[in-house]
Amino acid sequence: MYPKNAWYVACTPDEIAHKPLGRTICGERIVFYRGEGGRVVALEDFCPHRGAPLSLGQVCEGKLVCGYHGLVMGEEGKTVSMPGQRVGGFPCIKRFAVEERYGFIWVWPGDQAQADTAKIHHLEWAQNSDWAYGGGLYHIQADYRLMIDNLMDLTHETYVHSTSIGQKEIDETPVTTKTEGEQVVTSRFMDNVMAPPFWQANLRGNGLPDDQPVDRWQVCRFTPPSHVMIEVGVALAGHGGYHAPADKKVYSIVVDFITPETETSHWYFWGMARNFNVKDEALTAQIRENQGMVFAEDTEMLEAQQRSLLAHPARRLLMLNIDAGGVQSRRIIDRLLAAERAPAGEAVAA
Amino acid sequence: MYPKNAWYVACTPDEIAHKPLGRTICGERIVFYRGEGGRVVALEDFCPHRGAPLSLGQVCEGKLVCGYHGLVMGEEGKTVSMPGQRVGGFPCIKRFAVEERYGFIWVWPGDQAQADTAKIHHLEWAQNSDWAYGGGLYHIQADYRLMIDNLMDLTHETYVHSTSIGQKEIDETPVTTKTEGEQVVTSRFMDNVMAPPFWQANLRGNGLPDDQPVDRWQVCRFTPPSHVMIEVGVALAGHGGYHAPADKKVYSIVVDFITPETETSHWYFWGMARNFNVKDEALTAQIRENQGMVFAEDTEMLEAQQRSLLAHPARRLLMLNIDAGGVQSRRIIDRLLAAERAPAGEAVAA
Amino acid sequence: MYPKNAWYVACTPDEIAHKPLGRTICGERIVFYRGEGGRVVALEDFCPHRGAPLSLGQVCEGKLVCGYHGLVMGEEGKTVSMPGQRVGGFPCIKRFAVEERYGFIWVWPGDQAQADTAKIHHLEWAQNSDWAYGGGLYHIQADYRLMIDNLMDLTHETYVHSTSIGQKEIDETPVTTKTEGEQVVTSRFMDNVMAPPFWQANLRGNGLPDDQPVDRWQVCRFTPPSHVMIEVGVALAGHGGYHAPADKKVYSIVVDFITPETETSHWYFWGMARNFNVKDEALTAQIRENQGMVFAEDTEMLEAQQRSLLAHPARRLLMLNIDAGGVQSRRIIDRLLAAERAPAGEAVAA
Repeated sequence: MYPKNAWYVACTPDEIAHKPLGRTICGERIVFYRGEGGRVVALEDFCPHRGAPLSLGQVCEGKLVCGYHGLVMGEEGKTVSMPGQRVGGFPCIKRFAVEERYGFIWVWPGDQAQADTAKIHHLEWAQNSDWAYGGGLYHIQADYRLMIDNLMDLTHETYVHSTSIGQKEIDETPVTTKTEGEQVVTSRFMDNVMAPPFWQANLRGNGLPDDQPVDRWQVCRFTPPSHVMIEVGVALAGHGGYHAPADKKVYSIVVDFITPETETSHWYFWGMARNFNVKDEALTAQIRENQGMVFAEDTEMLEAQQRSLLAHPARRLLMLNIDAGGVQSRRIIDRLLAAERAPAGEAVAA
Repeated sequence: MYPKNAWYVACTPDEIAHKPLGRTICGERIVFYRGEGGRVVALEDFCPHRGAPLSLGQVCEGKLVCGYHGLVMGEEGKTVSMPGQRVGGFPCIKRFAVEERYGFIWVWPGDQAQADTAKIHHLEWAQNSDWAYGGGLYHIQADYRLMIDNLMDLTHETYVHSTSIGQKEIDETPVTTKTEGEQVVTSRFMDNVMAPPFWQANLRGNGLPDDQPVDRWQVCRFTPPSHVMIEVGVALAGHGGYHAPADKKVYSIVVDFITPETETSHWYFWGMARNFNVKDEALTAQIRENQGMVFAEDTEMLEAQQRSLLAHPARRLLMLNIDAGGVQSRRIIDRLLAAERAPAGEAVAA
Repeated sequence: MYPKNAWYVACTPDEIAHKPLGRTICGERIVFYRGEGGRVVALEDFCPHRGAPLSLGQVCEGKLVCGYHGLVMGEEGKTVSMPGQRVGGFPCIKRFAVEERYGFIWVWPGDQAQADTAKIHHLEWAQNSDWAYGGGLYHIQADYRLMIDNLMDLTHETYVHSTSIGQKEIDETPVTTKTEGEQVVTSRFMDNVMAPPFWQANLRGNGLPDDQPVDRWQVCRFTPPSHVMIEVGVALAGHGGYHAPADKKVYSIVVDFITPETETSHWYFWGMARNFNVKDEALTAQIRENQGMVFAEDTEMLEAQQRSLLAHPARRLLMLNIDAGGVQSRRIIDRLLAAERAPAGEAVAA
């Protein structure tokens, strides 16, 4: 149950640097590669000749060549040539709208007529040299919505991430959730607390003391189909918290692109964008390493939760105030799903 | 096809010493842990909040705390508290009757109203300091009844365990099987034979010569739902065999608790209780190691047999005299299954 | 979809040299062993006593003894004896026609009344001391017909085996395919080309220069149910190619026996028979190693193709001229399948 008429992060440029990449997105088996001029292309990963995955092939002079019998596929999904063959009558394969932007490859797995690159989620920090970014990718055996739930309710940090970013005050501080159009925002502000280890490291990374009380904040923003951007930070206590001047705080954005693979698995592109010490690549690497360990803890929990839910298909889950972020996000997803199922006329009307 | 209204061995105390244990027993996913005062608790392994397995959580001050969002579960299956939440309306989870006795944790996976600890299989040797016990646990991909068959017909020792406890005379000696109420007993007495390697080692372990003829015996006792206790031993020949004085024999009880996990897998708690050299821990360890190797041979055979039976669902098996132990044991199991399926009134009448 | 009334290669003698072999052929679980006088026997791999696989047993004095309870099985599938039992009424198990010939064990998995060893594929080279043979076995998760397609269209060599036997000229040279009775022959002749690495090594192995133009040929012969013999070779250019004198060429036969296991897996017996330097065992070993690496490349491609086809069950594949070999071979297979489904009278009439 995932919207298909949407832009999803499919991969990162390094994944297609040396050879084609085969990846299933929203149930579609897709091959990604760099075609002529280096432009990214996304096609059905199926050679029309004998059904071999085109992703096992190679790119020669900007053309995707099937690794089995040398069929040369064009960027439109139409066979260009094949040794010794007339290819005019070969059936076409599906082409997917794809766009490289903000350091990611985005794909639209649904109705191609509706694909509009103007709808790609805007990432301010990705175009601004005052910011640095580092991240990674996990393949997780769980419904992508379990990850949205997870990220839109950070009370789990106290338990799942008790040694890194968790702290008791997260639990004790009420959370505010509101839907603003197609965005869901969940906020929590904790004043005058001690920073947990992950943030102590970041304070030091920004030349700030790590042993003084801080004001800490978490502002989670869901936007469809499944992106969650989380503003997180700490400021030395009493300087305005979220609004404190730059030299009194460490501030970053946890970046989460959650791309469905199948009904019970997804690709999780995680990372962190920061606007301090942006040229310090060692710091970028260290943050990535720490964040990778933290998110591996989520992976284990979500996969166990998925297995548990599959074993109890009839059980209904609770929807508490802390779950409001996930619940409201799922409501937006459900609206998109209903629109996709509606006849074309109605969909336009809606 | 397993009775659920019965006491099964679920785990051993060491398995819940440091953290909760999640284990599926008779199709029920159960979390076992030590609650207040160290008492063992068994609950449905499902957090009523978001369905995470509670077994991934921790025990804090005798309470089971969900590892995802900190829900605190009570020993009755009723949520005690959760940070920032009123939990009065939370749905309960199932509680399972559980009892720690004889060095094992026992659970009753079926109708909780019928659970009565007086029905737990009595283990004389477990309460008697004249006896020592050592054992282990195997997870086996086979119907638990294949293990009962295996243990109630020891002719297989000649073939499966030819290098340890098998010997030709087992085959050649007729076996006697009888049902006594809810117990099935299969006996075999072999007089004036040479002891096989396993028993030679035990003879030496008890200070007896290992190169003289012995009288050997095997008395297998099945009791429902799936326990098999096997009196085994050898005595120097001509001293009365099973009834020989203690200084002329080595005698022990092979202990087998066979706990269904699914229709085609089970937990096999195996061990040996002995009443000689009971303080010799090195001997306990050595017997356990030898026994572990012997029972690993059964594991391989039973898993292959299970795959073979699944591939030939229409084939009927033979029921020979040597199979009488397993056949009569299955009859008792079938009676229990019929009683569980009967309406409550009839069940009482039966 | 595989004919069952046919002789298939089941295994090689070394696989049954020391103990019975359990292998599934055309959906039949079969145990192979050497019975009395060393004659190969093939029986249903199912002990009539308790369903254990007989292949876990041992051969004692030419008799197959079940490894569980010592049932002694006869070569006709009738139980011979069992310790302490009268076995007259034991149900029989199926016996399969089996024949050791040409260094392989052949089995007929279908209607035993039709098994006739005269129908075993004749292998001239296997009985001729002017030839040497070396080969191996791969277990491949793909429909056996995908392997036939692969071998009856060698244009894939240019892409799948670009570093060993592939060369651009294969693509550029037209192929001729014709069906002769129950044989399909696909031929390609490439004159005046440079030999690729695999053939350079063979030229050196036969004392010929490896840096001169050669005439290369490939003649693929399919015979039912699924054998593909490929005459391959190179001759120094201008000496007659395929018909060149022996001291101007290197010539061999790629031997492929493709035995279905299930609908989506098969046993691939591959090898090479050559008639030069036949006593050079180091050369045999080297060719086997090279060939093993080449065929491992096919394995990866075929398994990916199978997964891709399973994910696109509705897609139809192209049948180009280069595919004619596979297409015509499948037509013969389809004819055999139809004959097996027809009532007996019709089958005879056909």
